[in-house]
Amino acid sequence: MATFKVKVLYDFQGEGGTAEMNIVAGETLTVTRTDVGEGWWEGFNSSGQSGLFPEAYVERISGSDPPSIPAPVLPPQNNWGDDEEDDDWDDDTMYSEIGNNHSQSQQHIYSNEQNQNQLSHQFDNLSLGGGSNMGDNKGTITKKSLNIFSSYVKSGLEGYILGTSSNLPVSNKKFRIFRDSDEILGRWEVISNPYTVQIASPKKATKMGGLKSFIAYQLTPSFSNVEVSRRYKHFDWLHDRLTAKFNVIAIPPLPDKQVSGRYEEQFIEHRRAQLQEFINYMCRHPVLSTCDVWVHFLTCTDEKQWKQGKRNAERDQMVGANFCMSIDAPEKEILSSLAEPRVEDSLNYVTRLDQSIKNLMQTAQDQHKKCVNMYKREFMRIGESFFALGSAFEYNQQGMYSKASVDVKNIGSTYMMIGKLYEEQAKMDWQPLFDKMYIYKGITGDLPDVLNLQRLSEQKKKECERNSQVPQTALADVRRRADVLTYTVFAELNHFQNERDTDLRLAMKTFLQEQLNFYKNVVSKLEETLDKFD
Amino acid sequence: MATFKVKVLYDFQGEGGTAEMNIVAGETLTVTRTDVGEGWWEGFNSSGQSGLFPEAYVERISGSDPPSIPAPVLPPQNNWGDDEEDDDWDDDTMYSEIGNNHSQSQQHIYSNEQNQNQLSHQFDNLSLGGGSNMGDNKGTITKKSLNIFSSYVKSGLEGYILGTSSNLPVSNKKFRIFRDSDEILGRWEVISNPYTVQIASPKKATKMGGLKSFIAYQLTPSFSNVEVSRRYKHFDWLHDRLTAKFNVIAIPPLPDKQVSGRYEEQFIEHRRAQLQEFINYMCRHPVLSTCDVWVHFLTCTDEKQWKQGKRNAERDQMVGANFCMSIDAPEKEILSSLAEPRVEDSLNYVTRLDQSIKNLMQTAQDQHKKCVNMYKREFMRIGESFFALGSAFEYNQQGMYSKASVDVKNIGSTYMMIGKLYEEQAKMDWQPLFDKMYIYKGITGDLPDVLNLQRLSEQKKKECERNSQVPQTALADVRRRADVLTYTVFAELNHFQNERDTDLRLAMKTFLQEQLNFYKNVVSKLEETLDKFD
Repeated sequence: MATFKVKVLYDFQGEGGTAEMNIVAGETLTVTRTDVGEGWWEGFNSSGQSGLFPEAYVERISGSDPPSIPAPVLPPQNNWGDDEEDDDWDDDTMYSEIGNNHSQSQQHIYSNEQNQNQLSHQFDNLSLGGGSNMGDNKGTITKKSLNIFSSYVKSGLEGYILGTSSNLPVSNKKFRIFRDSDEILGRWEVISNPYTVQIASPKKATKMGGLKSFIAYQLTPSFSNVEVSRRYKHFDWLHDRLTAKFNVIAIPPLPDKQVSGRYEEQFIEHRRAQLQEFINYMCRHPVLSTCDVWVHFLTCTDEKQWKQGKRNAERDQMVGANFCMSIDAPEKEILSSLAEPRVEDSLNYVTRLDQSIKNLMQTAQDQHKKCVNMYKREFMRIGESFFALGSAFEYNQQGMYSKASVDVKNIGSTYMMIGKLYEEQAKMDWQPLFDKMYIYKGITGDLPDVLNLQRLSEQKKKECERNSQVPQTALADVRRRADVLTYTVFAELNHFQNERDTDLRLAMKTFLQEQLNFYKNVVSKLEETLDKFD
Repeated sequence: MATFKVKVLYDFQGEGGTAEMNIVAGETLTVTRTDVGEGWWEGFNSSGQSGLFPEAYVERISGSDPPSIPAPVLPPQNNWGDDEEDDDWDDDTMYSEIGNNHSQSQQHIYSNEQNQNQLSHQFDNLSLGGGSNMGDNKGTITKKSLNIFSSYVKSGLEGYILGTSSNLPVSNKKFRIFRDSDEILGRWEVISNPYTVQIASPKKATKMGGLKSFIAYQLTPSFSNVEVSRRYKHFDWLHDRLTAKFNVIAIPPLPDKQVSGRYEEQFIEHRRAQLQEFINYMCRHPVLSTCDVWVHFLTCTDEKQWKQGKRNAERDQMVGANFCMSIDAPEKEILSSLAEPRVEDSLNYVTRLDQSIKNLMQTAQDQHKKCVNMYKREFMRIGESFFALGSAFEYNQQGMYSKASVDVKNIGSTYMMIGKLYEEQAKMDWQPLFDKMYIYKGITGDLPDVLNLQRLSEQKKKECERNSQVPQTALADVRRRADVLTYTVFAELNHFQNERDTDLRLAMKTFLQEQLNFYKNVVSKLEETLDKFD
C-alpha cells in the first residue's frame, strides 16, 4: 500500500520490549502498514524511528479519504502477542500437518504442455472477464482473480470432472440440493435442527504455572449446552481447514490477528463480538453448520478425541471440487443457456457488491473512530464553553445570584454528557455494522472464486465433449459431475441472496434502531435541560 | 495576528477586478488576516499570490484550535463593496463632522506636567489591576485597558467632576436612577413605553440611474409603525455618535463591515439578523432607547430634518462624563466602602465573563461552520455508502428482486437528508447564538472602561478633598457629581445583570429549543425509515 501521513492526537508510550513506539501529540508520522493487527498501525516519525502505535491516537492529515481497512489476511510474520504462541497442549498436531492433504488433489490428468498452455490461456480470459467491472485497485476481488490459476490447481477440479478422484473414500454424509424452479436453480436443504452458539466474554487464562497467559473463549452450542473453551489459534486452525476443504462454498473471515497491547480488554471484547459474527454465519449455513470439522470444533472436550478429530479433518480428502461428491443434487440436467448468463450476471453483481460493502465497512470504521474521538471531543468542547460561561455568571459578588448561571451550566453538562454518549454509542451501532460488513466482505471476496470454478468446470466439460477419445458413458458422468458442481454453486449463490435479505437486512435494521435510540437519548437529555429552565 | 496555514477544500474563482483570489482544492494557503470582513480571509498561496477568499472554503491545518474571531474593529482601509461608498444624498454631512465635537471635551484643567505624570501613573496601576485576571492575549479587554488614558481624556471626566463643564447647555431630558437597596445601588427607571423595531429583509436599491447599487434595510418601530430606510453606513454613523456620547454606557457593537462578493444574499441576510440584534439591545436599554440620536435615526423620513438631526447630534455637548449632567440620581451619598469593593469585583467578573463569552462565540462560529461543511459532508458520505450498497443489491438479475435493496437505499436517502438538515439547522441555532454572543462580547468589552471611569472619578474626588485650595461648597458639588457618576455606573451594571438573566438566558433557551427541534427531526426521519422496514 501507499504510505500516508498522520498527525498524532495524543501521547502514547510504547511498551518496552515490544515493537510499540513512543509517539508525541502534534508530531507527524508516516504510516507504512495498516494491516499489522486490529487497532494498530506501523510507521515512522521524523527522526526515522519506526514501530507500532494505536490507530485511534492519530488522525490522517490529507483530509477526506478514510484510511484503508487492514486486509483480513495472512497471519503476521511477527511473533508478538498471545495468538502466535504455539506451546499449547495440542500444538504438536495443530499446525504441523496443515497443507499436506490437498496437495494430493493437485495431480493433473493432462500433463502434456499443450493442454497446460491451453488452460492458462483460458484462465487469462476468465480473469479479464471477472475483473472488467471493477475500479482500480479497489475491492478485494482483483487480487483473488489473479490467483485463479492457483485456486484452480488447488481445487482438484480436473480430477473431479474427469472422474479420476472417484476412487477417493466418499463420506456417508450427503448434503442435499433442491431445484424448486428454473429461477432458483438450486438451494440447500433447509437446516433440520437449527442451533446457535454463544461465545461468552473471554477470560484470561494461564499455563506453565502462570508464566504464560492466553485468552480463552467459552463457546456454548444450544444443541448440547456443553461449554467448550477455544483460543484464537483454534479458530485459526479451523478456518484453515474450512478454506482448504470448501472451494465451492464461501467461508466467513476471522477477525485479524491481534497485537496485544494496553487496550487488550477493549480489543478482546471486540474480537469476541467478531468471533460471534463468524460463528453466527457458520451456524446459519446449511453445509458449514453440519460439517464434521465444525461440529468437532464445537463439541470436543476431550484432549485425545480432539487430536483424533484434528487428524481426521486434516486427512479429509473430500476437499475442493471433490466436496461435490458429498452432494445429493437433483437429477435434472442444467442447460448451459440457463446457467451461463446467470453466472456472468452474478459475477458482475458480486463484484459491485464487494466494492459497496467494503465502502460501507470503511464508512462504519471511520464513523466509529470519529464518534469515539472527534465527535466526543466536539461535544465536550461545546459543553465546556457553556459551562465556563455559566461559571462566569456565578462569579459575581454575593447577592447577585444568577438563575442564568445554573441554566447555562446545565446546558454545559448536557453537551458534555452527549459527548460521552457518542463514545458509548459507537459500540452499539457503527462497530457492529463494521463487524457485519467485515463478514460479508469476506464472503463477496470468495464468491468470484466459486463462480469461476463453475465456469472452469463448464469449459472442462466442453473440452471432454469435443474430445473424440472420451467414450459416451464417461461423457455422461462428466456432464453429471459438472451439473452437480453447478447445482452446488447455485445453491451457494441462493444461500447468499437469502442471507442478504434476512441477516444483512436485519443488521441494517438493528443499526437504524440503535441510531434512533441514540438520537432519542440526545433528545431526552436536551428536553430535561430545557425543562429545568422553567 | 500570527499567520497560520489552511488547506483549501473547494475551488473558488475570485471575481475579476476585486481583491479576491483564485484558490484550488488541496493547495495550502497562509492566512495573514481574518478581520477583512465577515466570511473572508486574506492570505497567500505557495506561489506568493495573495488576495481574499471565503473562509468557509478552507480548513485550518494545525488542528484543534478554532480560528480566531475577526475583531469587530475599524472600517477596513479598502474600498470594495457597497458600504464604503460615500456618494449618498446625505454624504456631505454624514462623515465630514465626525470627531469634531468631542475634541471640545478634551480640555485639561490641570495642564502642568506634574499632574499629568501623576495621572499617567494612576492609569498604569489601574490597567495592571484590570488586567491581572486575564489570560495571555485573550479576550477583548486587554487592549482597551491599555487605552484607558485616551478614554479618560476623551471622557471629559475632569471637566465634569471639577464643574468646569457646568456652563454647557444642559438638555431638558433627564434619565432617572433609583436606589432600591444597598445591594443594588442604582437602577435605571423602567422604560415607560417599551417598543420594538423590526428590520425587514434588506432590498437592493439603485441610485444614479442604476449605476450604483446599495442595500437598504427597512426599519419599522412599533411606536410609529412608519417604515424608514437605512443603509449600513447610517448605522455606522449612528454607532459613532453613540460611542462618542456614552462613556458611562456600554454600546452594542455593529456587525463587521462586509466585503461584497458572491455570497451577498446569504451574508446580507445574516447581517440583517445581526442588525436586528443590535436594534433589540438598543430598544431594551432605558437610556439608549430614548436618546435623541437613536430616536432621530428610527423616525426621520425627511431629508432636511435628517440633516438637521445629524447636525444636532454632532453638536451635542452632553458627551462622555458630561452626560451625567442629564442624570437625575438619588440624593443619598454613596459610601466609598460600599462602592469600591463592588467595582473591583465587577471588574474581575466582567473580565472573566468577556473571556467566556468570546470562547462560546468562537465555539458557535466553529460549530456553525462544521454543520454547514463537515457534518453535512459526513452525513452525505454515510448516506452515499448505504445508498450505493442498496443499489448494488438491486443490480442482480431479474427475478432476484431484493427487499433489502429498497430498505438500504432508504437508509441512504435518510442520512443524506440529515446531512442537509445540518446545513439548514445551523442558521437556526449556532448562528443566532453567535450573533447574541457577539453583542455581549461588545458589551463586556466596554464595561471595564465604564468601571474604570468610576475609579478615576473617585480618585479625582479624593484629590480635590486633599487639596486645601478647594472650598467646602465646591467640594460638596464635586462629591455630588462623583456620586451621580457612580450611580450611573451601578445603574448600567444592574442593567447588564438584568439583560444577562433575561435576554441572554432567553437566547440560551431558544438555542436549546432549536437544537432539540433538530434532533427531534433527526429522530423522526430515522423513525420513518425504520417504519418502512416492516
